[in-house]
Amino acid sequence: MTRAQFATLPETPSIELTPGVIGYPLFGQGAMLNLLDIEPGAGVPLHSHPHEQLGLVISGELILTTEGAEHRLGPMDAYQLDGDVEHAARAGDSGCRVLDIFQPVREDFREQAAAG
Amino acid sequence: MTRAQFATLPETPSIELTPGVIGYPLFGQGAMLNLLDIEPGAGVPLHSHPHEQLGLVISGELILTTEGAEHRLGPMDAYQLDGDVEHAARAGDSGCRVLDIFQPVREDFREQAAAG
Repeated sequence: MTRAQFATLPETPSIELTPGVIGYPLFGQGAMLNLLDIEPGAGVPLHSHPHEQLGLVISGELILTTEGAEHRLGPMDAYQLDGDVEHAARAGDSGCRVLDIFQPVREDFREQAAAG
Repeated sequence: MTRAQFATLPETPSIELTPGVIGYPLFGQGAMLNLLDIEPGAGVPLHSHPHEQLGLVISGELILTTEGAEHRLGPMDAYQLDGDVEHAARAGDSGCRVLDIFQPVREDFREQAAAG
């Protein structure tokens, strides 16, 4: 049984969320990490999921749109979205690196990671 | 009702976990972030909690001890600990910045943050 896991995130098997949005996931029991490298201008369109999402911008600029407002986030800016809140996200002109957290685990991401 | 939150983590009200270990929390519904700035050599002794814990080293070196093994982690090294797994953590010689994630929310941290 898994009790503790360690991984260097940009070196784990990756998943492509959309073109230019690459994730490096670590799956826990009731939550998961997903380190995202987003190319300049790339992003994910407006969507929602029942999972709560939290995150932290590590470098670059992330433009997160939710509830009709556009939030321009830089390093150490954090966010939290309740489940089912519609949101879109894209990188600024120099791209960005972001850590996304989901609870519970995104089983769609786990399947995508397992499929290679 | 809270639907979305935004915060710059080193600027939010802080909590002192132990001397030299300062946390900047963001509380969600079923999970929370806690950005930790740990001074050189400072840390938390062996302990456990029922909450699952995940994390990512952002800068510096974190020495995480669990299940009898010492793990020296650098930037973009991630970890995941099931609930009730005993662990200790301390910073290396230059300190470190780490993002901890807990699920569910650490109500003890919420009370500490509310108390100022």
